Amino acid sequence: MTTTVYLNGEWLASEQAKVSVFDRGFLFSDGIYEVVPVYQGHPFLLELHLQRLHRSLTEIGIQTPTEDFWNNLVAELIQRNADSDCLVYIQVTMGAEAQRSHLPTGDLQPTIFACSSPLHVHWQVPQPAKVAVLDDIRWQRCDIKSISLLGNIMLKRKAAARGAIEPLLHRDGRITEGASCNYFAVHQGKLLTPPADHLILAGITRTWVLHLAQQLQIDTVEEPIYVNQLHHFDELFLTSSSREVQPVGQIDDIIVGNGQCGEVTARLAEAFHASKRHLIQE
Amino acid sequence: MTTTVYLNGEWLASEQAKVSVFDRGFLFSDGIYEVVPVYQGHPFLLELHLQRLHRSLTEIGIQTPTEDFWNNLVAELIQRNADSDCLVYIQVTMGAEAQRSHLPTGDLQPTIFACSSPLHVHWQVPQPAKVAVLDDIRWQRCDIKSISLLGNIMLKRKAAARGAIEPLLHRDGRITEGASCNYFAVHQGKLLTPPADHLILAGITRTWVLHLAQQLQIDTVEEPIYVNQLHHFDELFLTSSSREVQPVGQIDDIIVGNGQCGEVTARLAEAFHASKRHLIQE
Repeated sequence: MTTTVYLNGEWLASEQAKVSVFDRGFLFSDGIYEVVPVYQGHPFLLELHLQRLHRSLTEIGIQTPTEDFWNNLVAELIQRNADSDCLVYIQVTMGAEAQRSHLPTGDLQPTIFACSSPLHVHWQVPQPAKVAVLDDIRWQRCDIKSISLLGNIMLKRKAAARGAIEPLLHRDGRITEGASCNYFAVHQGKLLTPPADHLILAGITRTWVLHLAQQLQIDTVEEPIYVNQLHHFDELFLTSSSREVQPVGQIDDIIVGNGQCGEVTARLAEAFHASKRHLIQE
Repeated sequence: MTTTVYLNGEWLASEQAKVSVFDRGFLFSDGIYEVVPVYQGHPFLLELHLQRLHRSLTEIGIQTPTEDFWNNLVAELIQRNADSDCLVYIQVTMGAEAQRSHLPTGDLQPTIFACSSPLHVHWQVPQPAKVAVLDDIRWQRCDIKSISLLGNIMLKRKAAARGAIEPLLHRDGRITEGASCNYFAVHQGKLLTPPADHLILAGITRTWVLHLAQQLQIDTVEEPIYVNQLHHFDELFLTSSSREVQPVGQIDDIIVGNGQCGEVTARLAEAFHASKRHLIQE
């Protein structure tokens, strides 16, 4: 399927978009990315995504373009592809060198790539899904949305082999996140989620769900949660820009609650749908 | 500087070699690599490098070409570039998809890239260098020679900012390796090096130095070593395919021994030079 993508100042058919084999993104995964959901042509929470993009770029030492640049890029990408519901993907790497060398040499021009892909938007709460508990083997800067993702990919594959849509990762029993999502648990009416430290990516959907919980006056605690608490949770759900609020009905062989979408999860999912409707009708 | 590189069956000028932005190596660092030193046209310990390449490919689930394929590729790359002393670089990724998706879709054709770069070969023991102690923030599968290297790059940059050629990494005080090298210490005539577990890459130069130590009847222990032992070491050196045997004279502000290359290090470096001479004269 041909789409129009952006690469270093040019608009190209997706099949034509190529980078040098000496791009530091290809050789060293020396780069970061961002994914923005777009509903009926409107990017959702774009400002928060651009703030995080800016932070990721700063953390790995790439000079960051202005906010105007990104706003225009996203708008033009949506327009050129006549995209209604889609995910906008942005990737920035340290750029291409003449020769492979661990330390970047000279003044590199960052590589900027952006494309869009179709998005299935949920307007009803999705069916509960299964996740699989796995050791979090990734690095200790998961707060950077980097393209250094082989660990995530290997864990996602392992989870899929167990029939799960995502791994539920933990370090020595302490739950972190998924391979591309955050987790929330509900226990006795309280919403629990791991704190946004260096071991998880502070998801934009996570941030928005915390905001919605506050609006709905749901008691929320951002504190470590543990694998040995999984049996006690009444509800569990995961969040991501593509999955939005996704109820979890099963953790390996453990059924969560009664296996159905719980009440708190449903309220937050509905509030999330309302946010999207509000965006579209603005 | 133009060289001839190999990319997916073609021989190209280095500036012409490009991969799709949808290559999983570029998007997810879903790939592995290998670096082989070549002395006067002769690849050194190629069989060991190809064994490790095979292992890396298997670990991340890429179908691996035959050993003949790699032997021919390395030979032709050396010949086409009329390379005398060089490093042959090989990278294999999961291949390019039509669209970004965490789990690989369909039957992907792996991307195979190989190039060479100039190598400064040591024929005398190099001057002692400085290294910097840093927390090992990388993932827990450092035994895979993956291109998911952002952690290594960030650590290498941090070390460079302190005037060091490499970080000396540790996890909770236990020394692992460098960003692109292994470490050996000498204490009371004994050679000590961390075991080749999942936290370090089993370097081919490391393997060869262990072999040389055996030949020289140097007592060797592959056991954990710790940051708090650094003061007590008589000698320290690092090994890699490009640096060979590199004495370390300083760890941050600590001078190792008398700051000069120690006796055991010198014997091993000389034995290493002899191995190269032997290869060339074969």
